[in-house]
Amino acid sequence: MVERRAVVLLSGGLDSTTSAAIARSQGFTLYALTFDYGQRHRIEIEKAADVAKHLGVTRHIVVPVELRRFGGSALTSEIDVPKARSLAEIGHGIPVTYVPARNTIFLSFALAWAEVLDARDLFIGVNVLDASGYPDCRAEYIAAYERMANLATKAGVEGKRLTIHTPLISMTKADIVRAGLALGVDYSLTTSCYDPASDGAACGACDACLLRLKGFRESGTRDPIAYRPTTPAAP
Amino acid sequence: MVERRAVVLLSGGLDSTTSAAIARSQGFTLYALTFDYGQRHRIEIEKAADVAKHLGVTRHIVVPVELRRFGGSALTSEIDVPKARSLAEIGHGIPVTYVPARNTIFLSFALAWAEVLDARDLFIGVNVLDASGYPDCRAEYIAAYERMANLATKAGVEGKRLTIHTPLISMTKADIVRAGLALGVDYSLTTSCYDPASDGAACGACDACLLRLKGFRESGTRDPIAYRPTTPAAP
Repeated sequence: MVERRAVVLLSGGLDSTTSAAIARSQGFTLYALTFDYGQRHRIEIEKAADVAKHLGVTRHIVVPVELRRFGGSALTSEIDVPKARSLAEIGHGIPVTYVPARNTIFLSFALAWAEVLDARDLFIGVNVLDASGYPDCRAEYIAAYERMANLATKAGVEGKRLTIHTPLISMTKADIVRAGLALGVDYSLTTSCYDPASDGAACGACDACLLRLKGFRESGTRDPIAYRPTTPAAP
Repeated sequence: MVERRAVVLLSGGLDSTTSAAIARSQGFTLYALTFDYGQRHRIEIEKAADVAKHLGVTRHIVVPVELRRFGGSALTSEIDVPKARSLAEIGHGIPVTYVPARNTIFLSFALAWAEVLDARDLFIGVNVLDASGYPDCRAEYIAAYERMANLATKAGVEGKRLTIHTPLISMTKADIVRAGLALGVDYSLTTSCYDPASDGAACGACDACLLRLKGFRESGTRDPIAYRPTTPAAP
């Protein structure tokens, strides 16, 4: 049987972990790509390694990318991560946690690796909830990226069509949790918080925590990760 | 007068230097971006700094990008750079010097910087001669990239249209040399060779040298850079 390779973007968060588990369930062997982009929530990188092992990826690469040099985001600079917004506030306008061109840069490295691996499939865990705030999580953006990617590469020129899979794009956080649990994902290995404590405990108050907690709540499951004791919405 | 900022991709070569000079001649203030991607021809990076100074750029950033980790190209690995091909051979098929997704990665960093700078214009020195071999130098690729970029960013969502300028796309090397000289470009500061000697002397035999030498010859000008004494086609 011919090995079907997929490059999966893996941040160590809920979404990318589930996206990778879905890729695996579709019979792909996984090549996981994580970025060290000077994110404040650096625990992501360790979590990504744990998740990669858990999912049995063939290879996991952490690529440093110098996004901090450009500035412009709460995730990579000294701008404060907003806290304790209501869920109703999330998704109105583009948040300060938006990192300029982040997914475009990440997909571009994935494209390079896919070409070297002769992989025709990329998986990215963008979803409809993120899409409401981040321009580079929308389906029309992904479609335009895929079209460009098929013109960018030797493989594309040779007619080997590249597909960008977004298995979570129309799922809610609760759908994502349910899908992952059905595939045996151990969410205790993941992290979502934009501003974790030094021991890794999630803040429970940033947009990422609020959405994650809502997802577990609505799926009827307990989030297995640790939150700071003061977290209002902790499970 | 409002400053019009452009992000210019600058490798220190003939093409990107001319592209940047054209951007300057159109009234843009220049923000030059160079990549340290583990290229064998690392002298490029020093040359880019000299060129940036010569062109009076407002800011010059050198961004490290880990393309070597993926391998797959003669420019970033131990594959030999082909030598002494005839000019007729160049441009048939995709050469081993092709770096997977290179321009896609470079443009993605430029896009991130443009968004932070509130610049709406990117300049890249791709041209018709490169296009014959590299998929990511073709006009249709650039058009698809521009379309994707306008869906990728906050600026795009807010209706601030981003343009990717390719002033050299339909020029021959001789046209490029003439255009640069007319704008006062000092080509002695540039380098094109894929495999320069330790003192920076160009080999005169790789595809990049052959095309450059042909460009100067056809423009009726002498190439001011140093070539190794054994170079067959040296000026």
